[in-house]
Amino acid sequence: MVRNNCKKVFRGVGADALVTLNEDFRFYLTGFASSFGVLITDREGTIFYTDKRYLEAAEKAFFDSDIEVKEYPRKVKLSSLLSSYKSIAMPLSKLTAEDYLSLKNSGFEIVDSTPAFNRAMAVKSGEEIKNISLACAATDRAFCDLLPKIREGMSENDVAAELEYLMRRYGASGTSFETIVAFGENSSVPHHETGLKKLKFGDVVLIDFGCKVNGYCSDCTRTFLFGDDNNHEKFKKYYDLVLQAHMLVKEQFKSGIKGKDGDAIARDFFAKHGLADYFTHSLGHSLGVNIHEFPTLSQSDETVFEDGMVFSDEPGVYLAGEFGIRIEDTVTLEGGKVKSLTDSSKNLIIL
Amino acid sequence: MVRNNCKKVFRGVGADALVTLNEDFRFYLTGFASSFGVLITDREGTIFYTDKRYLEAAEKAFFDSDIEVKEYPRKVKLSSLLSSYKSIAMPLSKLTAEDYLSLKNSGFEIVDSTPAFNRAMAVKSGEEIKNISLACAATDRAFCDLLPKIREGMSENDVAAELEYLMRRYGASGTSFETIVAFGENSSVPHHETGLKKLKFGDVVLIDFGCKVNGYCSDCTRTFLFGDDNNHEKFKKYYDLVLQAHMLVKEQFKSGIKGKDGDAIARDFFAKHGLADYFTHSLGHSLGVNIHEFPTLSQSDETVFEDGMVFSDEPGVYLAGEFGIRIEDTVTLEGGKVKSLTDSSKNLIIL
Repeated sequence: MVRNNCKKVFRGVGADALVTLNEDFRFYLTGFASSFGVLITDREGTIFYTDKRYLEAAEKAFFDSDIEVKEYPRKVKLSSLLSSYKSIAMPLSKLTAEDYLSLKNSGFEIVDSTPAFNRAMAVKSGEEIKNISLACAATDRAFCDLLPKIREGMSENDVAAELEYLMRRYGASGTSFETIVAFGENSSVPHHETGLKKLKFGDVVLIDFGCKVNGYCSDCTRTFLFGDDNNHEKFKKYYDLVLQAHMLVKEQFKSGIKGKDGDAIARDFFAKHGLADYFTHSLGHSLGVNIHEFPTLSQSDETVFEDGMVFSDEPGVYLAGEFGIRIEDTVTLEGGKVKSLTDSSKNLIIL
Repeated sequence: MVRNNCKKVFRGVGADALVTLNEDFRFYLTGFASSFGVLITDREGTIFYTDKRYLEAAEKAFFDSDIEVKEYPRKVKLSSLLSSYKSIAMPLSKLTAEDYLSLKNSGFEIVDSTPAFNRAMAVKSGEEIKNISLACAATDRAFCDLLPKIREGMSENDVAAELEYLMRRYGASGTSFETIVAFGENSSVPHHETGLKKLKFGDVVLIDFGCKVNGYCSDCTRTFLFGDDNNHEKFKKYYDLVLQAHMLVKEQFKSGIKGKDGDAIARDFFAKHGLADYFTHSLGHSLGVNIHEFPTLSQSDETVFEDGMVFSDEPGVYLAGEFGIRIEDTVTLEGGKVKSLTDSSKNLIIL
């Protein structure tokens, strides 16, 4: 469904025009997915330039909207398209140095639109939360359906194939990042590359997965045991602590406190239990159109969180060569409190 | 498998150090996949800085190589890490304006490494062609296995789910881009967004799909009929012409001629048959680590193609509201001639 967030972001940038080339930001502004386009908003309105691959679909989608669709004129440089403006707002965090230098050399004053996008995109609309919830629901259903399909001898890749197939069947248009499936000691590598290792009795299984529905992401991690070989005392003790850290964040994090305070809830808890050195990443990150968005729940994040933000709660501990445990939900803040959007069981599963 | 292409690219840039932040370029240089890292090559050698998520895996992977792995020092700015250099080479086509300005303000002379990467990455090594061939083989096998599974009433999304599952099962780590499945008149939108439209007897089906194996992409498009309702004379005539254009490129394109000459083979053929206006995109693009690489087979490409380059041959015609036809193979140049890497049947299939 198309929308028009252009005016909202334009108002905040203080330039003659808001010029948006990046796929993710254009999608946020318009709700229309395309790999090529230039979106120009000024005081008069918004024009979306795209090429013939998208023209038919764009004209149909924006038929009833106040965004005008035009074909990007062949062999015309961006600077010519913008010649009536003195200052333009573009995201310096996304704009390439090449494009920056070319526009700068054409005489434009370039204002950074990143802060305006960050502010606007951080708090999700009802429609956006609905889409993220749909992605989270597909994620949950797929995980539940996956469990009984897991068999000894399957490769990490086989498990990823099943899981991605199920997410697709539950409405996903694809994954929101490369699915991580890690067996045994592979789980101790937080960003393990899913491979051909085969599952055997007693293995720890860590799965970090997510999908996209209507252009919005989900993100979820579960860690469980494929059979109990009675050799998992340490794992079980640590699992319990990671789960406690995860739940503590859900209880204590709230609207009005900072990202770094969220990170500290888990970090302090792990420190109290002597696990600080094993918690090797941040507690979480925002997500929406992109899987990693502003702000984060990290040791240095000074952003005050508010209702409508959507982020991951993903404490983890990693013991190189032994095992890793991460428990992650996508959550939002509603009425000041944390609400889970992914919500399959987090009690230790032993298949 | 790790490798070291750092010296090769460093030699071409004419700066004190080659500094590579981008995931794709770092992967090309080292063969190691990671979402965060800084790769620095100077006359002395190469250091790969990464964070704790990748450290264990990187140390293992580079154990026997001449690339040194170090943890990226916490709270240290990139400029401090580079303080011993005066000039650094970075790709202006990838570097963000933000990073560019920050490094520039720290006093560095920044040389563009894009041309050196383009040159180096355009001609694939034997190992790279092997990996692309593996991705192409998974693509072909998945397509053949998909055909008997297609049933009336399936949605575009269902077909994409089956296809992606099969590619995964045949060794893919994921898709190389978002799978396009278009039924009926949706096929006339070259970059249609796969949706919930249901398949019915007599529909044109266009599928544009590809996967990744060992970090390398494949790309393939097939167009076929789901049953023949005897209402497809025009479609069949145009299908035959698109296939002729596709095959003509394979016959006539060769090492030593330019990208634009390749595009012209198909474009001139369509013009001769009155279809020029319906061929709304370029003939093809290179692929490898990324699905779109330098050089392209487009009207303005002046690059002389050579043996070892890998690219798509994908002529197509699109009649808005009626149907679209695209026939695409991933191909390479070997012994001066075009060789297909994807190679499932291109004769018109009527299911």
